[in-house]
Amino acid sequence: MNACDESVVSASERAGEPAHPSTATRADAPPSASNGRGLDRWLLLRLRAALGNPDIDFAVRDSARITCTAAPVASVTFASRATLLSILTDPWVRFGDAYSAGDVQIDGDLVWLLEAVYRAGGMGTKCASLFRRALALRHRNTLSGSRDNIHHHYDIGNEFYALWLGKTMAYTCAYYATPEATLDQAQIAKMDHVCRKLRLKPGESVVEAGCGWGVFALHMARHYGVRVRAFNISHEQIAYARERAAREGLARQVEYVEDDYRSITGEYDAFVSIGMLEHVGVKNYETLGRIAHGCMGSHGRGLIHSIGRNRPARLQPWIEKRIFPGAHPPALSEMAHIFEPWELSILDVENLRLHYAQTLRQWLANYEAASERVRAMFDEKFVRMWRLYLAGSAAAFSTGTLQLFQVLFAPRGNNDIAWTRSHLYTP
Amino acid sequence: MNACDESVVSASERAGEPAHPSTATRADAPPSASNGRGLDRWLLLRLRAALGNPDIDFAVRDSARITCTAAPVASVTFASRATLLSILTDPWVRFGDAYSAGDVQIDGDLVWLLEAVYRAGGMGTKCASLFRRALALRHRNTLSGSRDNIHHHYDIGNEFYALWLGKTMAYTCAYYATPEATLDQAQIAKMDHVCRKLRLKPGESVVEAGCGWGVFALHMARHYGVRVRAFNISHEQIAYARERAAREGLARQVEYVEDDYRSITGEYDAFVSIGMLEHVGVKNYETLGRIAHGCMGSHGRGLIHSIGRNRPARLQPWIEKRIFPGAHPPALSEMAHIFEPWELSILDVENLRLHYAQTLRQWLANYEAASERVRAMFDEKFVRMWRLYLAGSAAAFSTGTLQLFQVLFAPRGNNDIAWTRSHLYTP
Repeated sequence: MNACDESVVSASERAGEPAHPSTATRADAPPSASNGRGLDRWLLLRLRAALGNPDIDFAVRDSARITCTAAPVASVTFASRATLLSILTDPWVRFGDAYSAGDVQIDGDLVWLLEAVYRAGGMGTKCASLFRRALALRHRNTLSGSRDNIHHHYDIGNEFYALWLGKTMAYTCAYYATPEATLDQAQIAKMDHVCRKLRLKPGESVVEAGCGWGVFALHMARHYGVRVRAFNISHEQIAYARERAAREGLARQVEYVEDDYRSITGEYDAFVSIGMLEHVGVKNYETLGRIAHGCMGSHGRGLIHSIGRNRPARLQPWIEKRIFPGAHPPALSEMAHIFEPWELSILDVENLRLHYAQTLRQWLANYEAASERVRAMFDEKFVRMWRLYLAGSAAAFSTGTLQLFQVLFAPRGNNDIAWTRSHLYTP
Repeated sequence: MNACDESVVSASERAGEPAHPSTATRADAPPSASNGRGLDRWLLLRLRAALGNPDIDFAVRDSARITCTAAPVASVTFASRATLLSILTDPWVRFGDAYSAGDVQIDGDLVWLLEAVYRAGGMGTKCASLFRRALALRHRNTLSGSRDNIHHHYDIGNEFYALWLGKTMAYTCAYYATPEATLDQAQIAKMDHVCRKLRLKPGESVVEAGCGWGVFALHMARHYGVRVRAFNISHEQIAYARERAAREGLARQVEYVEDDYRSITGEYDAFVSIGMLEHVGVKNYETLGRIAHGCMGSHGRGLIHSIGRNRPARLQPWIEKRIFPGAHPPALSEMAHIFEPWELSILDVENLRLHYAQTLRQWLANYEAASERVRAMFDEKFVRMWRLYLAGSAAAFSTGTLQLFQVLFAPRGNNDIAWTRSHLYTP
């Protein structure tokens, strides 16, 4: 139910200003510019309508306010009319920038607010399409383009990530066997879930495409007795991973290679990639499939874990611009370009989006607890930017705007596959 | 390893005839027509090469024979050169017709033979493509076209199917919790597996698109306390289903509707379709998705169980021509046309192809045990035709030429979904 219709707004006016029947009942007619509050109010109504009328109160500081009779999930106050006007011209990008700059104040839970926006489902595709061409040109995932894009996000400091990712330094969706599990427990459970899906056996070899800080490779080596070659083009992550492998006495079992997945050679029992596909680009999916297929023998198994979509769509433009240049969460029909050209059989797809919502909530809580240290490392704008990114991602997964797919696959005709999936659920 | 190269054939010649170095070493040069055995031998080599050189012995009755040094999985004898020539012009269709007519004799296990052919992987796409246009025109799944296509297969007599499908009359892939389960146990386990995936609760309502002989609808009503409306356009199947529901006292809980899935209206807690999608046609997938999406509320769940492919390809042309007109097993990228236009979220995909190979092996064994009765109902040609269809299908699933997908889905943003899949594996 959405109680935020315009007549209600008029009746529930809080600011004590005189009612403006012309704007309250016919919001398409802008008031004259000399009527400051009336104009702000009209702009707020336009914004709310563009957002699909979520249950949110909106205001311009020291000026107009529009409210809901339903309990609003949160309220948003813009610093000035200029801020509001700027956001109206390009809401998906400029809201994020204005929030980061401190020109938007949120009262209430930021995740709930963003969930309400996603559920209301206004705008979306139309605004996103404006950015499609420009972004596609700017952030191509060529070999050097990928390096730039990855450097932008992953090389901003291991110390920063260590503040909120937890002990595992796993920067991907965790798996909560029960909703009560802690973040660290759930990250370890995710690693075991993937290893069980791949049915890793001692003595086998695994190649990992995109290994983050390398902790999953260590986990496979330590707990499943496999040898791992793990690829990553983030210099900072590889340095961390090598140091940690040496410290934990696993350097002989795990080799970290600072190189692109396109450089993988050799044959392995399993191919695994957790949270890299988002950075690969659909144009390169066939190549990724060729590499996965080519490096596993006829009895090989593969698993790709990636953020995804219900249908093809661009990443939220502000996230793409400020946080993840070159990233794209694919629909399963897009992921098919990895598998179909090589006749790879899809054995199992699991959608873990609610687990990613929970993971992000826990990262956000850790992040907030460490916000003073983040501010000391960077600045207030950075603190707010990353808060918005984490909260927005939590909201996108909890509302089903984003999905999380784990796709298990094998070469055509490999019958050395699990008879059922019950082994995933028997300790 | 494939030991069936031509020099080996020459050395292992069994028929006692003089060696023909010209054909043994240069198989592309046909011998003169007056040299009968030499010509037959050359034709057999051509056929075997076209099939990708499977480990199979081939012969023309009372004439030439080509053999393998490797233990052949089976041997194939053609009644005459005319039979062999006919098959060479169009192997994928005419082999089936010649086998049905009794002009091809198989020594050895028919499933193993066909597995060897599928694994060798010759021909395939090229031959299949010849039929694509003609078949696409002939067997369209319009409302009346679907009726004709379904009548062709499903209305040939319930008594016939009862001979080999087992007590459940389920004519779709079973689910063997362990490989030792019986066919009936596995069919019941399949029904429970689907009900658990859908998380059916007493008092809920379910619509079933394509209900076969109606036994799954009865199972849902009896064991999960739900009301079911089940659609099917096969007159014979609906008649059987209604009679059985009345006999089992479930006629008030289960309504069978003799109508097309495109006529489904109303709102339900769950949408389910087992083994109908193969008959829907890719062009109608968006319509199927609209109906599934439209008939479930925001908390609905859906499941589609279908034969599938690793990548888009036509059904084996003889099966399509003689057994399943209008049928098409889709790749997941084709199934995406059901889900993506309506933003349905794919929650879980399970590939059960080895379970279908086992199901078909058990159907085939039942069928062979009842072959005298089948012969009395129809004729010898029918007996052989259906034997080939069942054996060929078993081989297609065991070699990964066909897949079996169960796809669980829900409307975007439905958070009333299972937290993990562990409930499927706890009795």
